[in-house]
Amino acid sequence: MSLDTALLYLRKNQPRYRRWLEDFLRIPSISTDPAYKGEVRRAAEWLARRLNYDLHAHVQLWDTPRHPVLFAHLPGEITAPTVLLYGHYDVQPPGRSQDWHSMPFEPVIRDDRIYARGAADMKAQIIALMAAADAARAAGLPLNIKFLLEGEEEIGSPSLPQVLRERRSHLEADVCLNPDAGMAGEDLPSVTYGLRGLAAFELRVYGPQEELHSGMYGGAMPNPIQAAIQALSRLHDAQGRIAVPGFYDDVVPLTEEERKILAQIPFPTEEEAREKWGIVAYTGEPEYTPLERTVARPTLEFHGFLGGYVGAGSKTIVPSSATVKFSCRLVPNQEPDTIHERIRAYLEAHMPAWVKWELEYLVGAWPVLIPLDLPPVQTLKQALADTWQKEPLLVRNGGTIPAVAFLQQHVGVPSVLTGFALPDCNMHGPNEHQHLPTWEKGMEALTRFLFYFFERGKGV
Amino acid sequence: MSLDTALLYLRKNQPRYRRWLEDFLRIPSISTDPAYKGEVRRAAEWLARRLNYDLHAHVQLWDTPRHPVLFAHLPGEITAPTVLLYGHYDVQPPGRSQDWHSMPFEPVIRDDRIYARGAADMKAQIIALMAAADAARAAGLPLNIKFLLEGEEEIGSPSLPQVLRERRSHLEADVCLNPDAGMAGEDLPSVTYGLRGLAAFELRVYGPQEELHSGMYGGAMPNPIQAAIQALSRLHDAQGRIAVPGFYDDVVPLTEEERKILAQIPFPTEEEAREKWGIVAYTGEPEYTPLERTVARPTLEFHGFLGGYVGAGSKTIVPSSATVKFSCRLVPNQEPDTIHERIRAYLEAHMPAWVKWELEYLVGAWPVLIPLDLPPVQTLKQALADTWQKEPLLVRNGGTIPAVAFLQQHVGVPSVLTGFALPDCNMHGPNEHQHLPTWEKGMEALTRFLFYFFERGKGV
Repeated sequence: MSLDTALLYLRKNQPRYRRWLEDFLRIPSISTDPAYKGEVRRAAEWLARRLNYDLHAHVQLWDTPRHPVLFAHLPGEITAPTVLLYGHYDVQPPGRSQDWHSMPFEPVIRDDRIYARGAADMKAQIIALMAAADAARAAGLPLNIKFLLEGEEEIGSPSLPQVLRERRSHLEADVCLNPDAGMAGEDLPSVTYGLRGLAAFELRVYGPQEELHSGMYGGAMPNPIQAAIQALSRLHDAQGRIAVPGFYDDVVPLTEEERKILAQIPFPTEEEAREKWGIVAYTGEPEYTPLERTVARPTLEFHGFLGGYVGAGSKTIVPSSATVKFSCRLVPNQEPDTIHERIRAYLEAHMPAWVKWELEYLVGAWPVLIPLDLPPVQTLKQALADTWQKEPLLVRNGGTIPAVAFLQQHVGVPSVLTGFALPDCNMHGPNEHQHLPTWEKGMEALTRFLFYFFERGKGV
Repeated sequence: MSLDTALLYLRKNQPRYRRWLEDFLRIPSISTDPAYKGEVRRAAEWLARRLNYDLHAHVQLWDTPRHPVLFAHLPGEITAPTVLLYGHYDVQPPGRSQDWHSMPFEPVIRDDRIYARGAADMKAQIIALMAAADAARAAGLPLNIKFLLEGEEEIGSPSLPQVLRERRSHLEADVCLNPDAGMAGEDLPSVTYGLRGLAAFELRVYGPQEELHSGMYGGAMPNPIQAAIQALSRLHDAQGRIAVPGFYDDVVPLTEEERKILAQIPFPTEEEAREKWGIVAYTGEPEYTPLERTVARPTLEFHGFLGGYVGAGSKTIVPSSATVKFSCRLVPNQEPDTIHERIRAYLEAHMPAWVKWELEYLVGAWPVLIPLDLPPVQTLKQALADTWQKEPLLVRNGGTIPAVAFLQQHVGVPSVLTGFALPDCNMHGPNEHQHLPTWEKGMEALTRFLFYFFERGKGV
């Protein structure tokens, strides 16, 4: 049993892991779209086969109302510590095909990057976890290793709390290693200690049951787009702050010390953002830096608006309905359910009385702040430092991984967060990609973590 | 030459006109959608064949940048007056197929009604004009009859002014008879003396060039849906009045006398509207009746809103763009170009500075008020009264027929307006239909008009 043996094994087996990744990327495991339910299951079954046949793990597929949770176990010495490896095998929808340079589910390699939906978020990260476990086991490391691989992260992990409560005994572990948090740059290995939470909504506003001629009825007939615009325009003030009463009440203020830590994280300057995305300017709270706004401040973001006639040319109708998708990113100590109640009450106060409407609360996820003195955080920092020969950055991430708070709440397992997706990887957008040299370094860092964590004993 | 002969001819030829109508309804002449350009032309060519082969008219097809204008001429006695028969052979898009009980371009007859897109608006009305001319000519009426049939009414007749200026000499006439204005009820023959104008727009707001992950960038990245909502919410005040400065400046106030005339026009009560369309309540200016709001007051109506992710489930992105279609219905003496300038200036003042945007002015059409003492108005009232055995209603219509103002401005021809589409015909909506017994009465009324107009001489 030696780390060197494991690292050598890892390097020898790169072509095998690359094949795994390519096969895995070909499965369109889009969790949000019911049409892809079978494909999501196919991804879980593909992983189950790899974990069982190749890693010789005990594997269980736990069904849920939506997509299955995959649990796998590689038992070690009875006295050894236990690590739980987390991943999500579902992906975002690819979006408009014309925005992609290659097919989203036909992986293509260009310039050391593999392009496909889910490459960075987070199929490459799952394969890296499997590779690290494979190498550690091949080198004889008797650590207890468990996998928790879910298929609903991109829709807010709605089935996970129930699964965690029911399967608590299976999932007990000293720490959860979660590589879904990305890194700040190719040469900036990162330990993420904060995540934003999420409260996601769909608002539906109804006018006449069918579209009506705006010449015949316009002026007297309730227009659902107009009503939605009136109510939703009240959610932000003119400065772009969120105007829902109490929205910011529970936000833990940023300390000067934390602002210093955050100031080290790279973020595109406004000039770079203009160049890269064609925007006029950054928006948001002027008293915070753009990076702080995206990782340490809450938001209310509109994702989609559909109402009435949206085809070519004009159609002069009073529309029948309007549907708006939006969500809030939350920071400690905001609670998604409380935010939901406040937004609902505010819309009730501001939606015109002349329309019917409903607000669906799609999903809530808690924000996370991991104590920097948690011992596995130090272990992870060491593993990254030894791999990159560089002290890792401590970062907060503006994204959301519901499982982190759920595992703490329902199973009592703390998480440590890292990842090997680079900031320009187009996660959730077109042409998503994973930088392959960084991925290979990531496997090495995860393997080191398993060895160091074993050596340091049960969480010590 | 006798009216009785013409009316007998009309009745005998009903099956032939019915076949014309069904053939005509099968052509999907959707003018707003470039994909249907060929079908729009096919409708013009179909009409040209009927007018030439069946009515023996001289026919010309005048090309425009979009859809052709069909001109036809049935010369009468040199000293006889000239009537110009107006119609538009284009139709609105059918909308969502699941809302239709039968295929929109496969006419089906149920309960004395023919269902198809364009049945009421206005293919049945065009066939009624052709039938009246056919019967009048068969009975030897030596009136000069011209047809002006355009293919762009549903998109605001953008090519018509140029055509009218260039072809002025062809189009000279004593009056234009326009049956595109509908009627107030099956037993309520109607002469329309007012139409609303139109100024139609498309607003496009741009955020980042591609969709971005709202976890990674939300809080700092400009959201085009948010910007559009902020600016557009300023267009109406909380009472639903239009808040654009100067919007109402040129509106001619309703007189008490006119309000008495309008009070005779039937309009669904709020209770009936709840039952029929599932709405909560009528909206708009409380100091006007719902009918007055729809025919004699200007509006600003949103027709369509599309931005970001609108598929199933959620997708947490900062969207790249938002597109909003809206239009104003105008009343005398509002001018569409002035309204356009005022709306543009207002949006410039209220659109957040952190987005790029553009406002496209799609089309402008003038509102119309026809003097009630115009002699052909009396002729038309007589023709309707003798057909229905009932005094016709005088009505204002909330819709727009750009040709009416254009013909007055560019050729000096006044119009008289009627029509045989009933209020419940679902014009522009799903399951549009024409009530056939009313259609047949309409043909009779139009035939009477041609005879009475000839008898009364040149507009006397």
